[in-house]
Amino acid sequence: MPADRQLDVYLLPDLIEPEQLAGKTAVVIDVLRATTTIIHALASGAEQVIPCLEVEEAKQVAARLGGRGITGGERGGKQIPGFDLGNSPAEYGPERVAGKTVVFTTTNGTRALLRFKSAGRVLLGAFVNFSALCRELADERQIVLLCAGTDGNVTREDTLLAGAIVDDLARSRNWALNDQALLAADAWRTAVRLLVDRPLGITLRDSHGGRNLIEIGQENDIDLAAQIDKFDIVPQLDLNQWWIRLP
Amino acid sequence: MPADRQLDVYLLPDLIEPEQLAGKTAVVIDVLRATTTIIHALASGAEQVIPCLEVEEAKQVAARLGGRGITGGERGGKQIPGFDLGNSPAEYGPERVAGKTVVFTTTNGTRALLRFKSAGRVLLGAFVNFSALCRELADERQIVLLCAGTDGNVTREDTLLAGAIVDDLARSRNWALNDQALLAADAWRTAVRLLVDRPLGITLRDSHGGRNLIEIGQENDIDLAAQIDKFDIVPQLDLNQWWIRLP
Repeated sequence: MPADRQLDVYLLPDLIEPEQLAGKTAVVIDVLRATTTIIHALASGAEQVIPCLEVEEAKQVAARLGGRGITGGERGGKQIPGFDLGNSPAEYGPERVAGKTVVFTTTNGTRALLRFKSAGRVLLGAFVNFSALCRELADERQIVLLCAGTDGNVTREDTLLAGAIVDDLARSRNWALNDQALLAADAWRTAVRLLVDRPLGITLRDSHGGRNLIEIGQENDIDLAAQIDKFDIVPQLDLNQWWIRLP
Repeated sequence: MPADRQLDVYLLPDLIEPEQLAGKTAVVIDVLRATTTIIHALASGAEQVIPCLEVEEAKQVAARLGGRGITGGERGGKQIPGFDLGNSPAEYGPERVAGKTVVFTTTNGTRALLRFKSAGRVLLGAFVNFSALCRELADERQIVLLCAGTDGNVTREDTLLAGAIVDDLARSRNWALNDQALLAADAWRTAVRLLVDRPLGITLRDSHGGRNLIEIGQENDIDLAAQIDKFDIVPQLDLNQWWIRLP
């Protein structure tokens, strides 16, 4: 029986042309740390997250919001001078972000979002909302999982999450998969065998993003990003308003 | 103990800048079918293979060689009009190529070779020369495995071979690996478990390159490409003469 559903993975934003996303449901993945952190912010009661490409743009958007706005993000993994928060999920508790609009800019994750302008629907994925995301995707017919990567490099942590999603969705339906989806799922299946002996956080340490975080003293964020199913929410990017909210 | 050897995989030629190859040992991988076919040609006694980017260039080079030259390659997977041979390994037996110079052009494999101009050493890899290649690489210190892909798409067959090489080399030495090397090795390890139940050729059918070959009626080539260790040779690209020969 030929598959009537298409599930494709792209290991980097540059590997797909924006027009290939037209009408499809797209999932942006930046496990370390943009999507993990945005999910933490919304789970902590932030009203919305506005992704910005540039630091100055973020400052201007936040200034217009007055007391409701709070700036967050990173450059080179570190907090941006003058910003309220960095890019660690640990900073986005209810005491800081409940009821606020987070104006957010990161090097890779927010850039990846820009490729989605023609998509039908854009969801945010991380290990912390894995099962909720898979449920949300189960009835879709055209899905693209897009890994943010880091500075143009494929990252293991994003690929493993993409593979975990492919592995989950393939259990219940017959999907046509591109080669990157097959590879990501195969990589995840090997990682799963290793999970018997060690937590996901250990595997994620041995990745481009993991090594970067250890280098800048943010190793704890790896464990926060590795908490599978900590939250039961799936943030969505509103393509008209250009904000990320819970449905 | 920190690794003093670096082993990197790139899933597509565009993912590496040519200058990143300077002084390193590079392996070009195009399992379906360019590197598999070139290895067959040299194993069949072809004196050398000259890779060309363009069809007209190949015709001119062959014309200068007179009776010693024979043209081979593909566009869209199919034999090029006026060429002596296509891109199927089955065509490159001793009766056709022994003692000849094969002037060869393919869509992806020969293009990938062009990125290697600054490399220290360039070897050709396929499943058919897997163990010989791994032995040749074992004492190197800076290795890049470069997958040709297909028309800018990552291909499962090339990634799996890269992963098999990483898996083999990592058994005897401590290598620093980039994320693409980790992912390729993880994907290969899952595939290896499947090999208990089914031959590699079945796995390679479920790939971008495999599906293309089935579509153009060349399915038999997949099985030829899946014959692990059929040959004990490692062709090398001479960067001055721009020919591929056995050492």
